[in-house]
Amino acid sequence: MQARQGAGVITGIGDDCAVLQVPAGQQLVVSIDTLVEGTHFLPDTPPAEVANRLLGAAVSDLAAAAATPAWLTLALTLPEADPHWLEPFAAALAQRADELGISLVGGDTTRGATLTLSAQVHGLVAEGQALLRSGAQVGDRILVSGTLGDSRGGLETLLQPLPLDDRVQYLQQRFYRPEPRIELARRLRPHVHAGLDISDGLLADLNHLLEASGVGAEIERDRVPCSDALRQTYPQQAVDWALSGGEDFELCLSVAAEQAGACIAAAQTLGIGLTEVGRMTAERGLRVLDAEGRVIEGLAQGYDHFKEST
Amino acid sequence: MQARQGAGVITGIGDDCAVLQVPAGQQLVVSIDTLVEGTHFLPDTPPAEVANRLLGAAVSDLAAAAATPAWLTLALTLPEADPHWLEPFAAALAQRADELGISLVGGDTTRGATLTLSAQVHGLVAEGQALLRSGAQVGDRILVSGTLGDSRGGLETLLQPLPLDDRVQYLQQRFYRPEPRIELARRLRPHVHAGLDISDGLLADLNHLLEASGVGAEIERDRVPCSDALRQTYPQQAVDWALSGGEDFELCLSVAAEQAGACIAAAQTLGIGLTEVGRMTAERGLRVLDAEGRVIEGLAQGYDHFKEST
Repeated sequence: MQARQGAGVITGIGDDCAVLQVPAGQQLVVSIDTLVEGTHFLPDTPPAEVANRLLGAAVSDLAAAAATPAWLTLALTLPEADPHWLEPFAAALAQRADELGISLVGGDTTRGATLTLSAQVHGLVAEGQALLRSGAQVGDRILVSGTLGDSRGGLETLLQPLPLDDRVQYLQQRFYRPEPRIELARRLRPHVHAGLDISDGLLADLNHLLEASGVGAEIERDRVPCSDALRQTYPQQAVDWALSGGEDFELCLSVAAEQAGACIAAAQTLGIGLTEVGRMTAERGLRVLDAEGRVIEGLAQGYDHFKEST
Repeated sequence: MQARQGAGVITGIGDDCAVLQVPAGQQLVVSIDTLVEGTHFLPDTPPAEVANRLLGAAVSDLAAAAATPAWLTLALTLPEADPHWLEPFAAALAQRADELGISLVGGDTTRGATLTLSAQVHGLVAEGQALLRSGAQVGDRILVSGTLGDSRGGLETLLQPLPLDDRVQYLQQRFYRPEPRIELARRLRPHVHAGLDISDGLLADLNHLLEASGVGAEIERDRVPCSDALRQTYPQQAVDWALSGGEDFELCLSVAAEQAGACIAAAQTLGIGLTEVGRMTAERGLRVLDAEGRVIEGLAQGYDHFKEST
């Protein structure tokens, strides 16, 4: 595996450990994420797409903390040392790491029956400035980046193959190549009370945020952003998947009402949609409202890998 | 999984990321290690021993860098969320982490067909003081901590079961519960030119050190430390396993000749054996000498998980 010698790397791959320098005034932000063949991606997924998905998902946790990506370690377990798999995987990993500004500094490659990849990402943030799930306040507006449900749609096009038109390609790209919202999170950080990235689905993740912040929330179903590609390909499921589909790796942010407009405008300058979908309430729990403002009952709250395999 | 809130943990388990404070004047040292059922441990290994082995092996990399353990993240992939496995595993992990002075700050638990565990350990070391594989000098003495080959012997007693006498129990304990030489490495650091921990076997790892340092070495076979338990249980194999067995997680250090005695004495005050087994040479390559000083040909140089499964 090729190492890219990045900032702060005193000793990279090749020794027992990597030695890293955290700049003065910065805190270290770390997250570890695992992808397992058959659980998180389908057997025979192209190795480059495994690399893209792994890095996108892992680095998204740094974006959720408003941290700047710095260093990556990779634990790779695979059934055999097959260069036809390893070479395109390593090439895509190096390219995507470069795009995301993160340097591979260490790893462990082992043999095991199931292809399993764990990426630990390390980011940097000014002291005390990491964005957390706690801190949302009653009256805050809930903002969501991009569109939701696309990743779930992309998975569906792989499970029940459709002709590869532009929409299907778009959805598959959204599934395979999550785009961590690093710059957006850093730009908005001063205005944001709390936030996270949407990995389990908007409703499930918003529940995590509500729990950490000790507030409730209302979401207006019809404001949840959905791509045209998803609506046109899966008109029946699009809204459900936008609410509960998971793995879109968009940001969900809690922002003071008077800052919401400025945040949406700032996102626009980065070419990223940012949509107000609801607000934080004193009443606990999460309610999804229909067009008439009535609570919709019985909505799925996301998924759990131990209950339902993708 | 229970988190132990340790020094420098600003935000631990429960958010998208852990936020960590590296003290001024310190560098961060990281390493990631994977254990896979069927490759690194036998199916039906008691869950507590899986935890002990995982942490011992991972933290040993920090000892090899003369770093102080600080934080741990864990990626755990398992076939099902079985409390009969998870509870004793988590309890042993918490206890061993506590003993080793490392705090669990984050993780990812996923489902997959093969039990797979990746531990990333984070340590701290004064700026510029990490012990590396490079830096050994011609004429240095090669010192090895503890005894070698025991872990390989312990594995053998599990593969071809023997009556559980004291010796067999000792060997199994050496296999299951590696003891990272944290304090020894820190104490000796000022006198050591280069070092590593012995995970692939003395000969294989020493070759890594020679390559990184650009020197050669001679080892006297009869000086390689072997426990009585190993010699008595496996008289035919003991010396071979001490040279090439792997996974003892003892330290191999390169020390100026005039410092070797002081290092051995310092180890003694910690109750740890430290044995001079050879010296660094200008002539490249690694030679193992018999009692008459003749080079022994055709010795195995350690093992590769892709060639030979344990």
